[in-house]
Amino acid sequence: MEKDINCAYCMEGELLDKFGIKIRDLKSSKLYLFREQSHKGRVIVAHNNHVGEMVELSDTMRNDFFADVNQVANALHKAFQPDKVNYGAYGDTGHHLHFHLVPKYKDDFEWGGVFAMNPEKKFLSEEEYSIIIDKILKYLD
Amino acid sequence: MEKDINCAYCMEGELLDKFGIKIRDLKSSKLYLFREQSHKGRVIVAHNNHVGEMVELSDTMRNDFFADVNQVANALHKAFQPDKVNYGAYGDTGHHLHFHLVPKYKDDFEWGGVFAMNPEKKFLSEEEYSIIIDKILKYLD
Repeated sequence: MEKDINCAYCMEGELLDKFGIKIRDLKSSKLYLFREQSHKGRVIVAHNNHVGEMVELSDTMRNDFFADVNQVANALHKAFQPDKVNYGAYGDTGHHLHFHLVPKYKDDFEWGGVFAMNPEKKFLSEEEYSIIIDKILKYLD
Repeated sequence: MEKDINCAYCMEGELLDKFGIKIRDLKSSKLYLFREQSHKGRVIVAHNNHVGEMVELSDTMRNDFFADVNQVANALHKAFQPDKVNYGAYGDTGHHLHFHLVPKYKDDFEWGGVFAMNPEKKFLSEEEYSIIIDKILKYLD
């Protein structure tokens, strides 16, 4: 499938660095840490293909994609013990299927509501990002 | 699986009527129209079981659930031609897996961002709800 040169998930590099850090490849998708960490462990699971929505996937591809999402959600639960993980796919103006996985902690930021696309509040040092990434990787398999 | 008597998706009736209208049963879930219709065609797909998150489902159950979500998203695309459908699962304070499916229309309400849990802005007459429900039903199979 063709890549879109304006799409962060197709091109990665600078476009992706603005908001995310690649963690690793999954079966049918890529996993990124979301630089904005108001919700500790917030990540993005983006499909390998430049497809707009799940409705463009075959049944097998959809099953594989949500197996990836599920694998990541399990890892987040184990790594950070959130009280809930939220799942959201928007991308109105983009065209590349991705889900935000957002760990929520009881009575903490945005508990009980939706999550902002990007609160632009909490950014960490590269060392702090590494610690979070290592924790996720530990529980991914 | 046991029902929770405080859960709208387990009990339906008055608890559900406050925000939704049952459309029909799907293979592993129930489909409800969201009474708040700032986004024309907004619905909820709620799992048949009182499970908190997808991570509690077996692989087969997860595949069945997202096949339902996908079936509904396809129907929304056909019925209302939105420019995008957003998908969100939150439920921090509840414990019953459900996804909001929110059709978005270019340059219209909340285009380009996340969607509010409930904007509390646009409610319709029962007749208007019926017209929307019939349109969804028409394209569901």
